[in-house]
Amino acid sequence: MPVNLQPPIADQLLAVEGVRLGTAEAAIRKLNRRDLTLIELAEGSRAAGVFTQNRFCAAPVQVCKSHLATTSPRALVINTGVANAGTGEQGVANAKASCRAVAKELGIAAEAVLPFSTGVILEHLPVDKLVAGLPAAKAALKADGWYEACHGIMTTDTLPKCASRQVSIGRHTVTFTGMSKGAGMIRPNMATMLGYLATDAKIAQPLLDKLVREAADLSFNSITVDGDTSTNDSFILIATGQVGAEIDDEASREFQIVRGEVIALAQWLAQAIVRDGEGATKLMSIAVEGGKDRDECRQIAYAVAHSPLVKTAFFASDPNLGRILAAIGYAGVNDLDVNKLRVWLAADGEEVLVAEQGGRAVSYVEEAGARIMKNAEITIRIDLARGGAEATVWTCDFSYDYVKINADYRS
Amino acid sequence: MPVNLQPPIADQLLAVEGVRLGTAEAAIRKLNRRDLTLIELAEGSRAAGVFTQNRFCAAPVQVCKSHLATTSPRALVINTGVANAGTGEQGVANAKASCRAVAKELGIAAEAVLPFSTGVILEHLPVDKLVAGLPAAKAALKADGWYEACHGIMTTDTLPKCASRQVSIGRHTVTFTGMSKGAGMIRPNMATMLGYLATDAKIAQPLLDKLVREAADLSFNSITVDGDTSTNDSFILIATGQVGAEIDDEASREFQIVRGEVIALAQWLAQAIVRDGEGATKLMSIAVEGGKDRDECRQIAYAVAHSPLVKTAFFASDPNLGRILAAIGYAGVNDLDVNKLRVWLAADGEEVLVAEQGGRAVSYVEEAGARIMKNAEITIRIDLARGGAEATVWTCDFSYDYVKINADYRS
Repeated sequence: MPVNLQPPIADQLLAVEGVRLGTAEAAIRKLNRRDLTLIELAEGSRAAGVFTQNRFCAAPVQVCKSHLATTSPRALVINTGVANAGTGEQGVANAKASCRAVAKELGIAAEAVLPFSTGVILEHLPVDKLVAGLPAAKAALKADGWYEACHGIMTTDTLPKCASRQVSIGRHTVTFTGMSKGAGMIRPNMATMLGYLATDAKIAQPLLDKLVREAADLSFNSITVDGDTSTNDSFILIATGQVGAEIDDEASREFQIVRGEVIALAQWLAQAIVRDGEGATKLMSIAVEGGKDRDECRQIAYAVAHSPLVKTAFFASDPNLGRILAAIGYAGVNDLDVNKLRVWLAADGEEVLVAEQGGRAVSYVEEAGARIMKNAEITIRIDLARGGAEATVWTCDFSYDYVKINADYRS
Repeated sequence: MPVNLQPPIADQLLAVEGVRLGTAEAAIRKLNRRDLTLIELAEGSRAAGVFTQNRFCAAPVQVCKSHLATTSPRALVINTGVANAGTGEQGVANAKASCRAVAKELGIAAEAVLPFSTGVILEHLPVDKLVAGLPAAKAALKADGWYEACHGIMTTDTLPKCASRQVSIGRHTVTFTGMSKGAGMIRPNMATMLGYLATDAKIAQPLLDKLVREAADLSFNSITVDGDTSTNDSFILIATGQVGAEIDDEASREFQIVRGEVIALAQWLAQAIVRDGEGATKLMSIAVEGGKDRDECRQIAYAVAHSPLVKTAFFASDPNLGRILAAIGYAGVNDLDVNKLRVWLAADGEEVLVAEQGGRAVSYVEEAGARIMKNAEITIRIDLARGGAEATVWTCDFSYDYVKINADYRS
């Protein structure tokens, strides 16, 4: 059961001027499944992306990076069922062939097409099936196609993830709509976290390039379900430029508004993945502050977030402080003074100091911890008391169902 | 159920000249439980240790390090029930008080006593109970007390872990006996991996200091159950010096024999912990070769060993190559050429090439992988093909029982 995550309501998803989306059943791996999504972008659109750091980088990711570096994109093509990863040169050829087919269908250059795949790895993409499905996806293209598209990119997600925001910039109403998929950082064979966020604002390419990195850092790169990183992870930020004047000054109020909206929406989309994490029953925020730099804050937050012992304790609603302290201690920050740091548990408006001076806080009573642990959304706040840097990481707990899902996955 | 691990047979555990062991029920945390172990060493004994890297280093570990640096040890005192970790200055005072009490009982200096604790953390050690138990432990001291002692240091291990080896060096018969405890790298509250290895050989202190590090590196520091590191982990190598002439030349045949025996026994003791890992159904060896250096081999081996996706696949006996390749890919070796590496699965004398050239091996058939995965002990061999370094890490799979044990632990 996803943690406080509802399916999107079609009427509440807002069209982004310059973006049309269509889906089709292409039988990539299974019949009767919406497994092909086409996104068409108006001329003049700009995009920027961040991709997996995995050395087994999938073929579509390689092609996507190369195309993004070549020209402005006019279309995205996304298939589920087969990830086209661990497929060598044939995989790259297949990804390029898919782009050529989309280009021909839409009358654009092949380099203006960005390919994405998610599904089983080590299997070749059936390009012929994908190509055969394109006319139906093209025929389905529409401005309010986000609802269908967010279903079209799902694999084993239990819920589609899509949301919109709207904001006034001067006399213009600017829209932001995004969708994501993924239920583990890697969904074993049906791999991959995918995130797409489009706005009709006109944003200069250098700002867009910078913003996609910052937003990814604060959202998709700050979540973890199981510490595994997919071969296909991609996050694409699109600005179609259909509304308002070009935003090209990083210090401008306009850009700060756009920046805030993009980060907030990216965080919503990223957290939705954690809420729908494999077997998740709780959303945990690990907020580390008072660090020397952001890196050490992230290092400690991730050590806590990845600890199977912490995650199983949260599943059991057990305020097991020892496991949290031990994870902080082995995070690898070697000059950390554990006698100075403090740890709080917080939920539902209540915050309790649980650890200080190298041990349990004098004021702490187990009942307070137990009360907090009953909530579905819990924050672990850690003050390192040695600087001004901070970082937050989101994760979910570790349940029987996680093992069940991953042990049964291929059977 | 431990993986291919049998309880020790009392008759097969060999006394080490100069070592006497005794246990008692001290009611440290629970009644009617053998929770106090005393080890007395003959005068002239030498010891060397390696300890947890966790910043929340437990009080006994701090005292132990300090005493080892001060004088040669004459006694070890080990309690279960309370780990005396996360206990601040009072914890250190309690550990020192325990040493003083042992010293008084045995007529030795307090600095010649090494204290060890394992059990719940964030709770203070009841020194009075420990002290009250000492006369009984002293009265029970005997040369063939290893069998009782390996039971005495257990917490939630399902089996005690103790073994002996004997070898001829010149005209002398040298004995090595060791014991260990631990069922996760951290056993949540009942924390800690402890390992003790004693020989009656006479080994010069510099060689002993070096050997304890090498042996730990190749054994206790090459295992993982869940990636968590305890606050109390300790491994102590003791040479009582009762048999033969002093071994002080690293290049000598004598030292090479001792070295081989110590490493082999330490590996047996370390692997016993993995075999008895929480919920373990399989022992996995991840052997990485062809690396530029040992560090990158370990980095990749640990990435595979820590991946919950790989571990759940092994639990399911599923030869899920994609998960192994993905873990290699995200291990953080940034210039790794995934098209050059090869991966094999091996068990029971059979070895199958499963991946090469960035994907599934052409010769690989799923039936062969499935056959290997049915075994209880499986090796994943990875050739990075870029150098001569190698490293092996041992771990176990990830089962429903792991979650059950850790979610239920405190209830």
